[in-house]
Amino acid sequence: MSQSGKPQRVGAVKQITSHSNPIVKEIKGLVSQRKHRIQSGLFVAEGLKLATDALDAGWGVRYLALGPEAREHPLAQTAAAKAKARGALILEVNTAVLAAMTRKDNPQMVVGVYDQQTVEPDQIDPSKSTVWVALDRVRDPGNLGTIMRTVDAVGGSGVILVGDCTDPFAVEAVRATMGSLFHVPIAKMSKARFLELAGNWPGSVVGTHLKGSVDYRTVDYGEPALLVMGNEQQGLEDDMAGACKTLIRIPQAGQADSLNLAVATGISLYEIRRNHLEL
Amino acid sequence: MSQSGKPQRVGAVKQITSHSNPIVKEIKGLVSQRKHRIQSGLFVAEGLKLATDALDAGWGVRYLALGPEAREHPLAQTAAAKAKARGALILEVNTAVLAAMTRKDNPQMVVGVYDQQTVEPDQIDPSKSTVWVALDRVRDPGNLGTIMRTVDAVGGSGVILVGDCTDPFAVEAVRATMGSLFHVPIAKMSKARFLELAGNWPGSVVGTHLKGSVDYRTVDYGEPALLVMGNEQQGLEDDMAGACKTLIRIPQAGQADSLNLAVATGISLYEIRRNHLEL
Repeated sequence: MSQSGKPQRVGAVKQITSHSNPIVKEIKGLVSQRKHRIQSGLFVAEGLKLATDALDAGWGVRYLALGPEAREHPLAQTAAAKAKARGALILEVNTAVLAAMTRKDNPQMVVGVYDQQTVEPDQIDPSKSTVWVALDRVRDPGNLGTIMRTVDAVGGSGVILVGDCTDPFAVEAVRATMGSLFHVPIAKMSKARFLELAGNWPGSVVGTHLKGSVDYRTVDYGEPALLVMGNEQQGLEDDMAGACKTLIRIPQAGQADSLNLAVATGISLYEIRRNHLEL
Repeated sequence: MSQSGKPQRVGAVKQITSHSNPIVKEIKGLVSQRKHRIQSGLFVAEGLKLATDALDAGWGVRYLALGPEAREHPLAQTAAAKAKARGALILEVNTAVLAAMTRKDNPQMVVGVYDQQTVEPDQIDPSKSTVWVALDRVRDPGNLGTIMRTVDAVGGSGVILVGDCTDPFAVEAVRATMGSLFHVPIAKMSKARFLELAGNWPGSVVGTHLKGSVDYRTVDYGEPALLVMGNEQQGLEDDMAGACKTLIRIPQAGQADSLNLAVATGISLYEIRRNHLEL
């Protein structure tokens, strides 16, 4: 994981009661605008569970905002102490300020701001991989987050975002990961770079495709596997499909003409890892 | 399916340009408030695909609103002619009115208002069923809609909503079904009624449970199957778990502590129907 090169920060605690406080505005900007997340390299994750996951996984934390309830909660206090020791500014806020930060009527009692982490394309090492999921221009943040959660559950190696994808650090994506964001490496790359990676991949390269002729239940998925999933509307583009050694199809009996992307990815991942997962 | 008992309506065409037109307000109310959907027995589905699905499947249609683009589109004209023949009022509107109706900046070019249809609990006939999915207090409309889409894809028999569930006729749920709403029967029932149904069920009754001791890959799922899924936060309640003949578990290798509900349901459904689905 790439680490922030910023100087060591010193932790502190600060009370905020005003919605117009600059830090509140900064957090609102991170929640609502990708531009602010790109410029700052920061993102927002809501909730005590995600704060605990982030801190346990060693992610850099900039702010940890605690509502009144959190200041009475032992796990939240542990998180705050850890975050402070790691240089974060602890914000003691009221529920209205939490709601303003996250634009939610019923905000979680803890809201954290963390350093984004991604891996570089050349850090992907097939010899140390089980399965990577490559997503071609994925659009829906909920689908992306849900896929990261499933990659975590099957012991996958990470997610590759190919081309112009939705932001994995958007609040809706982070929320859908249920904390798996902090455990599943994310690599971003151009399509050209991905086609090179797929061309040199030593194991199976599998795409799901409506025109796929191979039944997903019949394939010998050699690890390391690379599972390539197309965009929600258009599916896999021709050159992406061409990069796959096998195009599988998941049978559909009814009148639905496709599966939800996160569901299709989940079914494929559990099939790929079917003989590797122990109860 | 229960049919509307209303007298035959006569189709007509009406131009609307004002946001304050009472029909525009009525549609806005159906989009935003469950109360209005319950009182009227109507719901809103966006898009030409869903309109075509609804009409082909014979659902009652009250209004079909067409934006300027739709009025040039052959499939939309076919849908409008069908809807009008079935007694609907065709609304010719501008894009701003469409946007106001659905509270979206980029509305679809067709918006339809349809009669809700559900099946009664005693219409569920196990002897004519493959698999029903019972959802215990499902909360998220996107999950519910996605599950209906997957039930359709596996040739399932329908969805049972147990207790206090999210509304299958909410716009987000309808959208996530991608049209499967019009093909997959929905039954609503109390937990007591469901426990009676499960107790008398002639085939397999399977729940997914973190404490489930049986590997989902090892079960002989006899049809008709009843798959029982718990709520997003709490999973299956004890009495619901107790009604299952088999409690399965989907293995998880990573640090995720659970799967998304729609993903877990999809994996279970494809496993249950594994030996029945043909490519």
